[in-house]
Amino acid sequence: MRLSRYFLPILRETPKEAEVVSHRLMLRAGMIRQEAAGIYALLPLGLRVVEKINRIIREEQNRAGAIELLMPTIQSADLWRESGRYDDYGKEMLRIKDRHERDVLYGPTNEEMITDIFRTYVRSYKDLPLNLYHIQWKFRDEIRPRFGLMRGREFLMKDAYSFDLDQAGAEHSYNKMFVAYLRTFARLGLTAIPMVADTGPIGGNLSHEFIILASTGESEVFCHKDYLTMTAPDAATDFDDKAGLDAIVKRWTSLYAATSEKHDAAAFAALPAEAQVSARGIEVGHIFYFGTKYSAPMKAVVAAPDGSLVPVHGGSYGIGPTRVAAAAIEAGHDEAGIIWPEAIAPFRVGLVNLKPGDAAVDGACAELYARLGAKGVEVLLDDTEERPGAKFAAMDLIGLPWQVIVGPKGLAAGQVELKNRATGARETLSPADVLARF
Amino acid sequence: MRLSRYFLPILRETPKEAEVVSHRLMLRAGMIRQEAAGIYALLPLGLRVVEKINRIIREEQNRAGAIELLMPTIQSADLWRESGRYDDYGKEMLRIKDRHERDVLYGPTNEEMITDIFRTYVRSYKDLPLNLYHIQWKFRDEIRPRFGLMRGREFLMKDAYSFDLDQAGAEHSYNKMFVAYLRTFARLGLTAIPMVADTGPIGGNLSHEFIILASTGESEVFCHKDYLTMTAPDAATDFDDKAGLDAIVKRWTSLYAATSEKHDAAAFAALPAEAQVSARGIEVGHIFYFGTKYSAPMKAVVAAPDGSLVPVHGGSYGIGPTRVAAAAIEAGHDEAGIIWPEAIAPFRVGLVNLKPGDAAVDGACAELYARLGAKGVEVLLDDTEERPGAKFAAMDLIGLPWQVIVGPKGLAAGQVELKNRATGARETLSPADVLARF
Repeated sequence: MRLSRYFLPILRETPKEAEVVSHRLMLRAGMIRQEAAGIYALLPLGLRVVEKINRIIREEQNRAGAIELLMPTIQSADLWRESGRYDDYGKEMLRIKDRHERDVLYGPTNEEMITDIFRTYVRSYKDLPLNLYHIQWKFRDEIRPRFGLMRGREFLMKDAYSFDLDQAGAEHSYNKMFVAYLRTFARLGLTAIPMVADTGPIGGNLSHEFIILASTGESEVFCHKDYLTMTAPDAATDFDDKAGLDAIVKRWTSLYAATSEKHDAAAFAALPAEAQVSARGIEVGHIFYFGTKYSAPMKAVVAAPDGSLVPVHGGSYGIGPTRVAAAAIEAGHDEAGIIWPEAIAPFRVGLVNLKPGDAAVDGACAELYARLGAKGVEVLLDDTEERPGAKFAAMDLIGLPWQVIVGPKGLAAGQVELKNRATGARETLSPADVLARF
Repeated sequence: MRLSRYFLPILRETPKEAEVVSHRLMLRAGMIRQEAAGIYALLPLGLRVVEKINRIIREEQNRAGAIELLMPTIQSADLWRESGRYDDYGKEMLRIKDRHERDVLYGPTNEEMITDIFRTYVRSYKDLPLNLYHIQWKFRDEIRPRFGLMRGREFLMKDAYSFDLDQAGAEHSYNKMFVAYLRTFARLGLTAIPMVADTGPIGGNLSHEFIILASTGESEVFCHKDYLTMTAPDAATDFDDKAGLDAIVKRWTSLYAATSEKHDAAAFAALPAEAQVSARGIEVGHIFYFGTKYSAPMKAVVAAPDGSLVPVHGGSYGIGPTRVAAAAIEAGHDEAGIIWPEAIAPFRVGLVNLKPGDAAVDGACAELYARLGAKGVEVLLDDTEERPGAKFAAMDLIGLPWQVIVGPKGLAAGQVELKNRATGARETLSPADVLARF
């Protein structure tokens, strides 16, 4: 993408309303714009990041056997009356009357609707296990929305829902998502630690939150130091191998890890002092096993092998892609701006033309741009008339992993500069060597 | 995808509520489920089709220089008060009060919001032309929603918005989208004819609808026969070449074509009799040039080269991907079910295992499945225990372009059957020859 033809509205001023660093940097880097309290437009750079996050989430959901569909944002209130949550959910639910005065709502989550879809079509244990997911906008009318995409009212969520004949099957489904989440966050370039969690309004009796450590995190968390260096299960993991998944989940849950709500100070104190990590954390995923909480009142039953009709055992599994984008910034930034993990950077390379109008520099940039593109490397070419200082600042701010800087003096000597955004390391090398790097 | 692990709830009965063929076939083929009046879930097969449509739309929008962002579904009422449309829009707009009793609404379109984004960031003619688009859910509270995805209340829309310094620039932007739409519909496998149209609540003085001919179409249309065989501009079209685009648009608008609202019976009668096509049509795209209708009241101004501040000239450009999916079925089906164009078929090949449990048949299917997959061919393998008759009927119903049928008798002779869904043509050939075809 040529910046002269892109829409990247960088802000020079630090926006006053932004209380956390991700909010501030996303506004400054032209990634988001607030449209109303807690409601944001994803500007082109922000959308690219969220789409990359979505793609990795999808690939790992599919690998674990989940099937994508897409439910609508507006739901009938009647479904929520059936489950008993219509009154429970309180003012966080955006309640709407349509033109015929029917009660509808903007879905804050989809347990009811997916259970309704399930009971419409599925009759037999032979069709289980089943895990259906979608990536769709949700709305939760927070009383005081803050922190940009970290806690918006309208936000994107990947929510998956599993259906099994019994608890043993449901635990296998839970473990599939547990492992899928380990892989997802690792691929996103984030260190996320599964922690025992409260179930809140979703309900149920087994739940883990996946928490990223960041000094700016919203809550206090406690865990064993070994979590920081554990390696996620590899792509060859067999999700049908119940015992194998059990072993992985056991390994990832046997060490101490808890949010403050579930913290056991005595157990934590019993760890060797050097293993005790007490830090701030950000929740980026949350998984639940809730048994028959929805299937029993909503009569989502299947025929068991013995012919009896039994309510299915369910679980739900959420990741907020818009929140993940913000959390990645909380975990990866410096004074100059964002430092993206390679996997979710909006572009991999920022190519800086220091002297547009100089035929040699323009030519070298055009060739690097074309040849990197041909190799599948996504490049943002700054071909604007800005001063070099402003270009460098903008590149550091938007945080692309690599910068290639092309100026007339270096080029006369056959050289360009390659800068690593995360380390700040700079090298001088030929354009051909730059191409060879990617 | 193995059907035994997929979620494809085929209905044997014809749903009573479905009045048009696309609605009926999408319900029967397990593509959609109604969640409330005019509100549908896209089941996995339906989502695959819509995602393929989205991808082609995106590629052609990007090729024409439009830039993707993503605006939220919920908008502040204040923006619509500024443009004057808050009261105009009537009961079709879903009006909502949030927990703080603030007026918000579910966006039926985005002229106001994008104009607000524009005026926040863009100050100079040097940043023009600019075309921003998104693919997002919209809500229009139709009084009597009908016909499934053809006229839903919650529906997906790709809407693009162009900004130019003056009318000449805006016409170039309009022509870019005109040509992008010609290419988009051609790539989708649809014959869409641009017709002069009314502008309705969007406003403005230049507008075309893109209309697919189908005997079940919603409205009467009239056009010159030559439209049926015209070829869309190719991928090498230079969108910056104003004169070139002008010539293309002139060619595509010089022949008679009009919806009934704009029909000129005398002009139509003047065509040679054999050139007169009078048919039913379905609107799948609609483009508008509306000048300063939004920029003037909302003060979206830029500095012109002479330093004066002028309101920008705008246009908007919509395609409904969910509607396109339905329209493609209206234009492509027979008694047995859907006939998808290759470009938007949910899978390219349906591989039918006629005898699961037979080692030779299972082996041949597994090998074809793996080798077609390795070639990038999307395959749905029916490995279920259904009777052959039910499998054939389901494959015809869901309308994949190709069926490969593997049974024990044929296989003993080294043969499988290849069926073309559109023509019904069948061939007997070896598995190796099947692979060579794709």
